[in-house]
Amino acid sequence: MKRYLALCGGVGGAKLALGLAHVLAPGQLTVVVNTGDDFEHLGLSISPDLDTVTYTLAGLVQPGQGWGRDEESFAALDTVGRLGGDTWFRLGDKDIGLHLVRRTLLGEGLSLSAVTDRIARRLGVAHAIAPMSDGAVRTLLDTDAGPLSFQHYFVRERCAPVVTGVRYAGAEHARPSPALAAALADPALAGIVVCPSNPYLSIGPILALPGVRRLLAGAAAPVVAVAPIVGRRAIKGPTAKLMRELGVEPTAAAVAAHYADFLDGYLVDPADPVELPGVAVAAGDIVMNTLADKTALARRCLDFCDELAGRP
Amino acid sequence: MKRYLALCGGVGGAKLALGLAHVLAPGQLTVVVNTGDDFEHLGLSISPDLDTVTYTLAGLVQPGQGWGRDEESFAALDTVGRLGGDTWFRLGDKDIGLHLVRRTLLGEGLSLSAVTDRIARRLGVAHAIAPMSDGAVRTLLDTDAGPLSFQHYFVRERCAPVVTGVRYAGAEHARPSPALAAALADPALAGIVVCPSNPYLSIGPILALPGVRRLLAGAAAPVVAVAPIVGRRAIKGPTAKLMRELGVEPTAAAVAAHYADFLDGYLVDPADPVELPGVAVAAGDIVMNTLADKTALARRCLDFCDELAGRP
Repeated sequence: MKRYLALCGGVGGAKLALGLAHVLAPGQLTVVVNTGDDFEHLGLSISPDLDTVTYTLAGLVQPGQGWGRDEESFAALDTVGRLGGDTWFRLGDKDIGLHLVRRTLLGEGLSLSAVTDRIARRLGVAHAIAPMSDGAVRTLLDTDAGPLSFQHYFVRERCAPVVTGVRYAGAEHARPSPALAAALADPALAGIVVCPSNPYLSIGPILALPGVRRLLAGAAAPVVAVAPIVGRRAIKGPTAKLMRELGVEPTAAAVAAHYADFLDGYLVDPADPVELPGVAVAAGDIVMNTLADKTALARRCLDFCDELAGRP
Repeated sequence: MKRYLALCGGVGGAKLALGLAHVLAPGQLTVVVNTGDDFEHLGLSISPDLDTVTYTLAGLVQPGQGWGRDEESFAALDTVGRLGGDTWFRLGDKDIGLHLVRRTLLGEGLSLSAVTDRIARRLGVAHAIAPMSDGAVRTLLDTDAGPLSFQHYFVRERCAPVVTGVRYAGAEHARPSPALAAALADPALAGIVVCPSNPYLSIGPILALPGVRRLLAGAAAPVVAVAPIVGRRAIKGPTAKLMRELGVEPTAAAVAAHYADFLDGYLVDPADPVELPGVAVAAGDIVMNTLADKTALARRCLDFCDELAGRP
């Protein structure tokens, strides 16, 4: 049985992860998720990207929004506000329920991997979802407003500050999670899919883990990425603005260059020509709106892996 | 200006505290509340008696129930249950909002006194509410089902286990809160009211704090208690059952004997004759259903203090 590994951030990546979950059997897919956005807030342990992927694969995500729970209420957060607490991070009541359970299980000594797996199973997710690491990695942005943690930059400041650098604090001491390490060492691994997530803020933390870039570059299985940029505009999120501020042209080609050391295949929009030595480029529609878009793009990723694996 | 100190547990005591708050100006009353029930649950810092008193004085308590928030929802707890977490302690969404704020403020280094005061002010409470101590005191019950923390005994096990002993873990190292110490040292203190709360589970932890019994006994101001038992049945809660198991007759007289070293006046139901050397006993209706009952009983407590203070 062929197995696949998907590397994924939040909303954009979760769309392709959902497509992959629809076209692969549960035992065939491991979705490894960025935890560089994780943070402690109101005493809760919050893992935004893990939760977005979990809610998406469980069919519980807020439709149209792409993150958070469906039919959510905000009674707890309204009380927090009434008592003078922080409300800039919009935690819904159902979402808080999950954070309380995660906090409790982590407090009992379970790893984030074990907690993530237990929560996903309880919510009916059949495919494997895992954090990139059980260690703490925190994405920090150096900005014209000083250094900001990811959520402070992304949510509280709405990406307004100008970014001068991105760091992944703790990455040098963190280890890939057991699921990520196992997938990369799996002889049945038939393909690695880099989802269309922000290369710096979502995929970057995963690539910063010791050994991961080297293992991706040396993997027998093809590594295929879907461009997170169509016609110079990020499909989702602040990718284009951030890249410009970092002095990188916000193009699909620049993202490919960022992945050049391990990339075998690249799926781009027909309007974004990319040429990179050693990288096969396939042009086609990569915007995912409907479930049909997501499953179709997932199938194209898997077919692309097969095609690349068949090459000499 | 005469000032008063009320010692108080949860639901039963909060009724009289509300009455006192209605008949005294804000600067005249300090309500000191049991924290022996406090516990950590789902990663939250929960102070059930403090919250009951705060919600009651803020006019936000669930009517008819006497604890918890009005118009409460349970979306977070439903999610906790769905994820396999503990749901025996019925935390509502609004209530969780308060716990998140308390946890955050405690984490920032504020004392429980400061946090309690800030929350109460934010909810519009004008009178002073304070914990009995900023240190951790935990009421533990030795039972035929083994030792149980208060909430495990009271809520999870619904007081079913047979109690063989009550301990106040940590009391010997805890200090009275600044508000309690200040009230007991206040030359303007005109009376101390022991609310009709469980003598072992609600008032007992306060009395177990170093020096408190001695300070009550030596106070210039009269100490007046309202019997928590009417006709051998606890007005509220498991008082009678617990007393019987501890080998004490569940009578108003036995409660008075428990307070004998510091008690000056005792308000009892006419059906419960009490005679105790050095203690003035006043019989009358002490059951509080309506707000009028609560304010009337509060007035009688204050008048009783005046009367006792006028004695030679």
